[in-house]
Amino acid sequence: MNTHVKVDEDQTAQARRPFLLKAWYAAALSTEIGPEALFHRKLLGTNVLIYRKQDGTPTALQDRCPHRFAPLHLGKRIGDEVSCIYHALRFDAGGACTHNPHGSGVIPKAAKVRTYPLVEKYGYIWIWMAEEAPDYALLPDYSPLDRGHPNGVGHTYMYLKANYELIIDNVMDLSHIDHVHGEIITTRGQLSPIVPAVVEGERTVNARWEWKQTPAMHIFSKFMPDPEAEARMFFDITWHQPANIQLSVGAIQGPGNLDLVDCVAQYDLHTTTPETETTTHYWFSTRRNHIEEDGDFNAFKIQAMHNAFVDEDFPIIEATQLEMQTNDFFSLDPVLMSNDIAPVKVRRLLQKLIENENGGA
Amino acid sequence: MNTHVKVDEDQTAQARRPFLLKAWYAAALSTEIGPEALFHRKLLGTNVLIYRKQDGTPTALQDRCPHRFAPLHLGKRIGDEVSCIYHALRFDAGGACTHNPHGSGVIPKAAKVRTYPLVEKYGYIWIWMAEEAPDYALLPDYSPLDRGHPNGVGHTYMYLKANYELIIDNVMDLSHIDHVHGEIITTRGQLSPIVPAVVEGERTVNARWEWKQTPAMHIFSKFMPDPEAEARMFFDITWHQPANIQLSVGAIQGPGNLDLVDCVAQYDLHTTTPETETTTHYWFSTRRNHIEEDGDFNAFKIQAMHNAFVDEDFPIIEATQLEMQTNDFFSLDPVLMSNDIAPVKVRRLLQKLIENENGGA
Amino acid sequence: MNTHVKVDEDQTAQARRPFLLKAWYAAALSTEIGPEALFHRKLLGTNVLIYRKQDGTPTALQDRCPHRFAPLHLGKRIGDEVSCIYHALRFDAGGACTHNPHGSGVIPKAAKVRTYPLVEKYGYIWIWMAEEAPDYALLPDYSPLDRGHPNGVGHTYMYLKANYELIIDNVMDLSHIDHVHGEIITTRGQLSPIVPAVVEGERTVNARWEWKQTPAMHIFSKFMPDPEAEARMFFDITWHQPANIQLSVGAIQGPGNLDLVDCVAQYDLHTTTPETETTTHYWFSTRRNHIEEDGDFNAFKIQAMHNAFVDEDFPIIEATQLEMQTNDFFSLDPVLMSNDIAPVKVRRLLQKLIENENGGA
Repeated sequence: MNTHVKVDEDQTAQARRPFLLKAWYAAALSTEIGPEALFHRKLLGTNVLIYRKQDGTPTALQDRCPHRFAPLHLGKRIGDEVSCIYHALRFDAGGACTHNPHGSGVIPKAAKVRTYPLVEKYGYIWIWMAEEAPDYALLPDYSPLDRGHPNGVGHTYMYLKANYELIIDNVMDLSHIDHVHGEIITTRGQLSPIVPAVVEGERTVNARWEWKQTPAMHIFSKFMPDPEAEARMFFDITWHQPANIQLSVGAIQGPGNLDLVDCVAQYDLHTTTPETETTTHYWFSTRRNHIEEDGDFNAFKIQAMHNAFVDEDFPIIEATQLEMQTNDFFSLDPVLMSNDIAPVKVRRLLQKLIENENGGA
Repeated sequence: MNTHVKVDEDQTAQARRPFLLKAWYAAALSTEIGPEALFHRKLLGTNVLIYRKQDGTPTALQDRCPHRFAPLHLGKRIGDEVSCIYHALRFDAGGACTHNPHGSGVIPKAAKVRTYPLVEKYGYIWIWMAEEAPDYALLPDYSPLDRGHPNGVGHTYMYLKANYELIIDNVMDLSHIDHVHGEIITTRGQLSPIVPAVVEGERTVNARWEWKQTPAMHIFSKFMPDPEAEARMFFDITWHQPANIQLSVGAIQGPGNLDLVDCVAQYDLHTTTPETETTTHYWFSTRRNHIEEDGDFNAFKIQAMHNAFVDEDFPIIEATQLEMQTNDFFSLDPVLMSNDIAPVKVRRLLQKLIENENGGA
Repeated sequence: MNTHVKVDEDQTAQARRPFLLKAWYAAALSTEIGPEALFHRKLLGTNVLIYRKQDGTPTALQDRCPHRFAPLHLGKRIGDEVSCIYHALRFDAGGACTHNPHGSGVIPKAAKVRTYPLVEKYGYIWIWMAEEAPDYALLPDYSPLDRGHPNGVGHTYMYLKANYELIIDNVMDLSHIDHVHGEIITTRGQLSPIVPAVVEGERTVNARWEWKQTPAMHIFSKFMPDPEAEARMFFDITWHQPANIQLSVGAIQGPGNLDLVDCVAQYDLHTTTPETETTTHYWFSTRRNHIEEDGDFNAFKIQAMHNAFVDEDFPIIEATQLEMQTNDFFSLDPVLMSNDIAPVKVRRLLQKLIENENGGA
């Protein structure tokens, strides 16, 4: 009788701890969690319930009643508490059982639900899934997303059937954009020959490209003094553990620095959270420094970027996952080229961080 | 070449014998097997063919031709025999090969199909799946289902994607009904505080609740002298190995015993048979002692109960199965409360019976 | 991080080499590969890209870019070369990398794609999937398919969810046809009693049946001098490693030999290629020696045969695969009869050839 069956890949994965745990992962966009919702999402192989207390503060509990393991998101809200659908045990936002309608009503000592520290910042709810106390300093500063007109920033959620590292590879190696994406963000072949400058930090990898193209990328050209003329451009991207990539991109004609101040530019965040080892939650945010008040343009732009990822990148990445049949990228003896420097540094650093977390290789 | 592939969970499960085998399981309702049908159903991981001989007696064979393993239910009936669709080997109701159209027509000695003892009783066809000779004394007596007007009893079949023990838990712990089910069978909160009297037998666990509520459960209140007034009520349930629960429930106003004789009451049977370790056949029968001749009410009532289980219990139980990712309930350290006494006794007794059957723990 | 997950059955299968590799397998019908197509198909667990060079010659590459493992069939044709969709590495028809748009443009030494020798013959593209050099002598001679009017031959592709050896069993034991198929190819019970003459070669097994029936099989009877009268008939079938069965069948009234010359007859090829251990590509070709110029009849005939296999054989074979839950046929202790002589000889010879290829049992 005591047999484990249907232990799916996820659980096995958890046992091997394939993910960095002492880290902040995006759990949801702030806008994904309505005031009354019992929102649930599988994160790093664990089902998590997220809801907002009546003061708006989000709270995260394991989505499992400790009594008979019914998902708590099937239950109902009672003020700041959640009542299990099955036998009506009630838990507060800190995971403590506050009501037991059964027998004498004594609350069993073990009737506790695991909670997860959350931080709500930059339009996201970030979650800490390690047992250890959260290290708030490990959440990067993405405050530029918050600065400026509300119509100057967009956020979107995407889901794909591939390991999250394949997405990090995708963004860290921007040499793919001329081949995968259309006119919207083409560099007209200017990017591929460039070997980006790559700088590795303790928990980060930065890569930077600078080039000229005629005209500028279409997302910027019409905001240039001469839309058809050559422009200087840059990409500056920084991966930060566990799975965030901050990407800045801009264009300028005439004098000025290749940065977010002088260029017509945007400040983006790509962040991913493994659902399982082979499925991934993926969010993209973009803040621009031009026509910031134009809500229609904002809506158009975030949708266009969403579509570019989903329609153009995802089919390739998902097909690659199926073809690889493993997440052990290096075991397949990939041919590595100059454009792989940044993503390979990320893979190796992330692997080192996970091994350190697990007590060394 | 001699490689085992796609050995699915079911077969593995069989190898570990996670089920009690020396036991009677429901295979089908009598009404599920028409006179001409080659009915098939997977029971305890094995595909079984069931059909009625011309005298109406049911017979059960492994649903696999011993020649090239085509399912026999794809074949055709020839009198009391079944002819394999693939090469027309013919077998009688006792599993003996009676015709071989190939070569000299000699019947190979090994051309036998395994049969399973059946008993048709109480509206069910019961099957014995152990290799050992059947012990007819192990079939409980559910003859009250048969007694009375034919419009006073209803039967229904359900299927769900969860281990059968999660269903036994559900029925053995009736404290869930006020939380899961609607007005139809609410005890208005009266049941949860009661710790039922639980009595364990050699192969049984009985639990009994008695309480008062105003009005009686809706399934009974309109048959009470005063439909709106308080009534005394009882539940009396008995699990019998391997997977049957007989449930009696009734209500009374004024003097009288809390039993099926004095109360407005019904005598129910919940019985489950594992299809696999994570999928279950589930049947429910109910015999009432009031307006027994009303066929419309009978049809309405069995459908209402069917819907209550399928619409209200099953989503919770199936979600629980997914969340547990194991059938080893105790390995997940459940919080156990007073309402778990009966189901936990069942789990422990069933486990002991299986271990005994397998030669000790 | 270096964890293998979602390694599916296919890959495991490859590791155990359950298939004969030093052999020619059908990869596609010639007509399946259009002049511009980047055709892909999984063969023996490996994804293969097949396309025609501008001179029409087919070429086969592993359908995986050696850089980041994107499937090459998602890319684009550039003359005789294929450019990967992801980062635009370009490969020629011999698998050599001819263009790297990244960094200095130097082509990495390891940037090679595995190629597979092909032969285009008899309406098929045949593939050699062993690492060792191809042995062209191992491709059987099916040139009779090519001889005669183009309307006298038909080809069709089918796919089924079963191990390829179950299909070989099906064709090598023609005793099933009176039981499985309808009027179209019935022998009116004449075939089953015959124990065919079986001759085993080094890489072949041949079986032959001769009998009389009234009238001839419906596919031939209307071409007989007296369509309603008795005819002499024959089947002559030869399995050739790894998975081809050449089947000749014909009917005659009056004097003459039971062969393709004297009879109203057809020369067929059944060939199968494992996609995985439990899924199979299956092709059927038929060349007839009567009304060879009738295109409508040709189209009707190949469709009728296609339908007979798909509608009548496949449901049995797929259900058998599910029932067996293993590809180790003999481990299930099949009852073997006289009609199994040919298919059992094939299974044993194929197993011996695979064991020899793997260095002995």
